[in-house]
Amino acid sequence: MMTTKAAEPLASWNDGGSRAAITEFVTRVTKRGSPDYLPAEARVAVFDNDGTLWCEKPMPIELGFILGQLAGSARQNPALADQQPWKAAKDHDYAWLGSVVDKHYHGDDAEVKVLLSGILKSFAGMTMEAYQQDALKYLVEGTHPTLNRRFLDCGYRPMIELLRYLEAHDFATYIASGGDRDFMRLITQKMYGIPGERVVGSSSALRFQEDDRCGALVYQEAHEVFDDGPVKPVRIWSRIGRRPILAFGNSNGDLQMLQYAGGDLPALRLLLLHDDKEREFAYTSGAERALQEASTKGWTVVSMRDEWKTVFGRSSGPQRRLSGPRESPVADRRAQDSISQQATH
Amino acid sequence: MMTTKAAEPLASWNDGGSRAAITEFVTRVTKRGSPDYLPAEARVAVFDNDGTLWCEKPMPIELGFILGQLAGSARQNPALADQQPWKAAKDHDYAWLGSVVDKHYHGDDAEVKVLLSGILKSFAGMTMEAYQQDALKYLVEGTHPTLNRRFLDCGYRPMIELLRYLEAHDFATYIASGGDRDFMRLITQKMYGIPGERVVGSSSALRFQEDDRCGALVYQEAHEVFDDGPVKPVRIWSRIGRRPILAFGNSNGDLQMLQYAGGDLPALRLLLLHDDKEREFAYTSGAERALQEASTKGWTVVSMRDEWKTVFGRSSGPQRRLSGPRESPVADRRAQDSISQQATH
Repeated sequence: MMTTKAAEPLASWNDGGSRAAITEFVTRVTKRGSPDYLPAEARVAVFDNDGTLWCEKPMPIELGFILGQLAGSARQNPALADQQPWKAAKDHDYAWLGSVVDKHYHGDDAEVKVLLSGILKSFAGMTMEAYQQDALKYLVEGTHPTLNRRFLDCGYRPMIELLRYLEAHDFATYIASGGDRDFMRLITQKMYGIPGERVVGSSSALRFQEDDRCGALVYQEAHEVFDDGPVKPVRIWSRIGRRPILAFGNSNGDLQMLQYAGGDLPALRLLLLHDDKEREFAYTSGAERALQEASTKGWTVVSMRDEWKTVFGRSSGPQRRLSGPRESPVADRRAQDSISQQATH
Repeated sequence: MMTTKAAEPLASWNDGGSRAAITEFVTRVTKRGSPDYLPAEARVAVFDNDGTLWCEKPMPIELGFILGQLAGSARQNPALADQQPWKAAKDHDYAWLGSVVDKHYHGDDAEVKVLLSGILKSFAGMTMEAYQQDALKYLVEGTHPTLNRRFLDCGYRPMIELLRYLEAHDFATYIASGGDRDFMRLITQKMYGIPGERVVGSSSALRFQEDDRCGALVYQEAHEVFDDGPVKPVRIWSRIGRRPILAFGNSNGDLQMLQYAGGDLPALRLLLLHDDKEREFAYTSGAERALQEASTKGWTVVSMRDEWKTVFGRSSGPQRRLSGPRESPVADRRAQDSISQQATH
């Protein structure tokens, strides 16, 4: 990455507190002779996804996909159509769904359980390949409901620049998100340059089902892990086996991940503040405790409005439709990669 | 890796069936213009550890560490000293312990549960840092009970050469083992060149415990995952997000991992046959089903006796003792790395 210096690093960041905090920290841990110098293997950075790398309002992008699946289930099985969460999905009742997410951020998970149980039912029995095909189609073809840009163009440009800047300094960057692992993995390479093996997220239980070829992984009607709050440090450790030295989040669900950074090593903790009604959204609901702790402990709060020159990259034009299955699955996989690539460049 | 061609690749492998199967497969998927050519990101190889990368007889090396911890618990708490598994640990009753492992491989897990429950009790409440300090000391200082070589010299030299050969062809190599994730991670970089983030293994439950600094991960008295048999493909997917195209195991616990390799892509499946009483051990107990399926499906069975010129590398001399805690944890971490490095080179 150091070889191509076409663009100035962090070009979309205004000069100011957060940019300086980032460059000073990176210099401190990477400059030979610095008392806090760390070898490359210790340079681990973790990023939340929803609301940190891409937009999460008016609802997380993944939720739109899930609702589409639920609505499909309700159409196929009318007995479900009067029950939550299928009812809300079928009726586009975003108020109910928004309230579920909001209550979760404030510690009330009763309706989250109703929602999750419905989701598990709707996906149970699907193979990984079938799930991925549906989810990729949604991601590549879909458009954000209010920003008038494609989902794949909803990544924050300054954050993508930060990922590149860290990589240029031999950091390994990971996503650690409450979002679904298998959903995110489909697009993190193309959107952020983060490959699937560096995506840590929530997951439903899978079972290996033998067949006469190589077997398949099939979703079970059971939850495996909800990668949020105090679970995040556990899953980060499980995947990476090191404490991160840089953590970047935006909500209460990222609080423990931010606390966990560093340990005996230096650390930089960043919290993205959504205060940009003009270019994105303005909200602090669900981030109150994180903002409070950031204030007490001197973590770096990044004001989207004041510190980012631009929020998004240019939107990349008309949607491309995914083609149907091809004869060779390898060729098909490459074709899908190619479509995602076109779609995000 | 391609830049240093000092040693012939796979130098400890005799010319013959397995060596040819490996080189032909690697050429087939890596040579430009080959109809089965795969890009580097699809080149994922998974290896079992116990009995595949290092020796597992007369008992898995990890079990010795666990028994030491159990014996320590029995000494501190005499009420435990008459109960299994503490009794067996205290009395060095390897017959009982061997029978537990053997019964597990044949589908009887009653005593495995007794053993695991005792292990969970003995480690519950330990922080990750404390666990790692104890386990690293055992690994670096310990010696194999019959082979007269240090634990860190119990890796199979032909397998380490294979790892280097695959890396030279842009494969990403992973360990997928029933062994404990946090135990293996301490030495896989030094022994095999596989970093901690590419170690998939069994784990006990962890909880994030806040404190006035960066918090700690603490072992709970609960199992998280036993990464064996049909669980292996699930955990491989969870960590990597791709199907491996090369899988190497040695027992029934690796059967599903071997089945899972490939999918729509080409695959090479290898099974190490322990038939070398002179230089290592000779046994097929616990590998019967895997050998049967290898025979039916034409998987590559590697005869240690016939196909390996040497089994182990040279043993690297006297043990080095780990020094005690130092003032700076960063310095201490580096010192431990340095000791492990000396110990394994």
